[in-house]
Amino acid sequence: MPENTMEKPNIVTCTAPVNIAVIKYWGKRNEELILPINSSLSVTLHQDQLKTTTTVATSRSFQEDRIWLNGKEEDITHPRLQSCLREIRRLARKRRNDGDPALDPSVLSLKVHICSVNNFPTAAGLASSAAGFACLVYTLARVFGTEGELSGIARQGSGSACRSMYGGFVQWIMGQKDDGKDSLAQQVEPETHWPELRILVLVASAEKKSVGSTSGMQTSVQTSCLLKHRAESVVPGRMEEMIEAVRGKDFVAFAELTMKDSNQFHATCLDTYPPIFYLNSVSQQVINLVHRYNRHYGEIRLAYTFDAGPNAVIYTLQQHVPEFVQAVQHFFPPESNGGQFIQGLPVNQAALSEELKQAIGLEPMPKGISYIISTKAGPGPRVVEDPTQHLIGSDGMPKHTV
Amino acid sequence: MPENTMEKPNIVTCTAPVNIAVIKYWGKRNEELILPINSSLSVTLHQDQLKTTTTVATSRSFQEDRIWLNGKEEDITHPRLQSCLREIRRLARKRRNDGDPALDPSVLSLKVHICSVNNFPTAAGLASSAAGFACLVYTLARVFGTEGELSGIARQGSGSACRSMYGGFVQWIMGQKDDGKDSLAQQVEPETHWPELRILVLVASAEKKSVGSTSGMQTSVQTSCLLKHRAESVVPGRMEEMIEAVRGKDFVAFAELTMKDSNQFHATCLDTYPPIFYLNSVSQQVINLVHRYNRHYGEIRLAYTFDAGPNAVIYTLQQHVPEFVQAVQHFFPPESNGGQFIQGLPVNQAALSEELKQAIGLEPMPKGISYIISTKAGPGPRVVEDPTQHLIGSDGMPKHTV
Repeated sequence: MPENTMEKPNIVTCTAPVNIAVIKYWGKRNEELILPINSSLSVTLHQDQLKTTTTVATSRSFQEDRIWLNGKEEDITHPRLQSCLREIRRLARKRRNDGDPALDPSVLSLKVHICSVNNFPTAAGLASSAAGFACLVYTLARVFGTEGELSGIARQGSGSACRSMYGGFVQWIMGQKDDGKDSLAQQVEPETHWPELRILVLVASAEKKSVGSTSGMQTSVQTSCLLKHRAESVVPGRMEEMIEAVRGKDFVAFAELTMKDSNQFHATCLDTYPPIFYLNSVSQQVINLVHRYNRHYGEIRLAYTFDAGPNAVIYTLQQHVPEFVQAVQHFFPPESNGGQFIQGLPVNQAALSEELKQAIGLEPMPKGISYIISTKAGPGPRVVEDPTQHLIGSDGMPKHTV
Repeated sequence: MPENTMEKPNIVTCTAPVNIAVIKYWGKRNEELILPINSSLSVTLHQDQLKTTTTVATSRSFQEDRIWLNGKEEDITHPRLQSCLREIRRLARKRRNDGDPALDPSVLSLKVHICSVNNFPTAAGLASSAAGFACLVYTLARVFGTEGELSGIARQGSGSACRSMYGGFVQWIMGQKDDGKDSLAQQVEPETHWPELRILVLVASAEKKSVGSTSGMQTSVQTSCLLKHRAESVVPGRMEEMIEAVRGKDFVAFAELTMKDSNQFHATCLDTYPPIFYLNSVSQQVINLVHRYNRHYGEIRLAYTFDAGPNAVIYTLQQHVPEFVQAVQHFFPPESNGGQFIQGLPVNQAALSEELKQAIGLEPMPKGISYIISTKAGPGPRVVEDPTQHLIGSDGMPKHTV
């Protein structure tokens, strides 16, 4: 084949969502296969606000697998990327050998070009690897014609990515097998189940990066005796309670358990040696704000949860969003009063009573929170049908706009 | 007796020390008797730096029991004060009934005037109630002639006060009995055992007061499943390890366990619902400083521990004090360079190498630490023989200088 005749690539583009756990995953029992020490449960956020878009192109002309993340070429030999590529190709080969006539055997030998972008800043501190690996695996599966159970492959890219393979309310069942075949995600309820539920991401002002979650959870597993107890004796009961709260749309039970589990996860980080701190003074202030807000109303209207960083994610019901957002603006006065402080789903204006302000009674922390992303539960990964949305051009290379 | 003839009071003055736990006490199984859910172990600090002084006067002329704390009259009917007064009188009565000829039976019916001061600011956030109740009980015992095992009575004033009844290294054995008779303090080693050990109290800048320890530990016992596990399954082994480390003067083992146990205590506070935060950003910075300092030298030279507040207490060996104090001054630049930043035992000047500064590599936090108290392990409560030191005059009232 002459160098100047590029065989037109086959191109597929998909999107995948971010998820925020309410029963936390922290600690692996198998580092290579990414098998967790406990089950976990998350809510899939809506892709209208937060998503990863991934384009995978295949062509006989490609000499090697390549990947571009947020516009920059990255090392394709990264072990977790290699795991996903290998497992998808293995699955495709298995299906072909099992005699599925829909599969084109020639595609298996093709090299891929992968291009992936997030529609949210990495600075938002949201676990972009979950959406990223979910999107990669989902898109590769489309390219190689291997739809079906894919969460076990996404899991091998990034543990929590398996939960981004489904919309709504998703559990990652830890499984028991050594080979990890039963460590899979499963939808508990679809995104339509609880339409009043709202999610607010409170992005804390950028601080220096803390310990990464991969090494952090390794150290925790090695050194925290409280983590072992949590995983073995606390989480199993909490998973049952949480599934019941979700199924029954019992916000109070859901919220209380969400807060307790976030706190317990951070407690095990503090019990790690040396200790890991993800909550900073802004996070502590958000926690105080939420408890005082709830106490003022004599009922639980808000829940917070924090992952491996200082950003708070708030779960609440639709009717409480306007006032709470106002309270956040009051106790974390933003740089300017520009509308950019609130992004995502529109939030109505609301008054903040003097009574509530006084009941909360915290010292305002100017600029403690950069902005809020307002969103709700959403669907799982999707194929993007519009070819203008492809991130890779017909030359097999990332488009310049990426 | 005419009103103007005051019977000259009998006056006794004693001092008692502060103690800092290295295996933490957090949680009661009996609120009234103050029986803990786990054993604990502490180092008694030297009274040259930190002490409570208490004078108890008795006189036939006194109409009622009264108490003055740090110059202000307080409510004598406080239940814990009443517990101590009642138990001391009960013990005296018992000894008299047992036929001890040394006891003057008439003293038992006398009312007491109590006057107590600390030589350190309450703002230092040191558990002044431990020294205070230890001193009260020790002094009352002298007055009523009931020396001997007194830690069980001090315990009923404030749990950790029982450990301030002895010098050096002291364990509080939790005991098993419902009546608390076996929940007592015991000296593990005297203060002379480990002369190289040094203690630095890093007083963090005053912040708003957090949750008090009495209500904090109540909430923890009620809500933290990690605390229950810690008390039942973690602390018993740690007590054995700590006693071995103290007996063998094994600083590395002592220091590592001290840090781990402080962190685990604060982890259980975070696992409390609503969560309790005692560590602030200054505390987190001290923790980072200590771990990076140790890492730089490839050995554990420093340990931190935190009680129910942001102040750090550092355990180290004599030879490391000057450099570490210099490091604290560098990473927490004080308001002025006045000598008042370091109080207590003199600390030699030392150079701080660029290498160490860079290895630590933290952003300095100006005025994060107000001052340092340099001290060491010290003896238990003492009688003050010099009558000029009495806090109560011959008129039975606090001296004006108090």
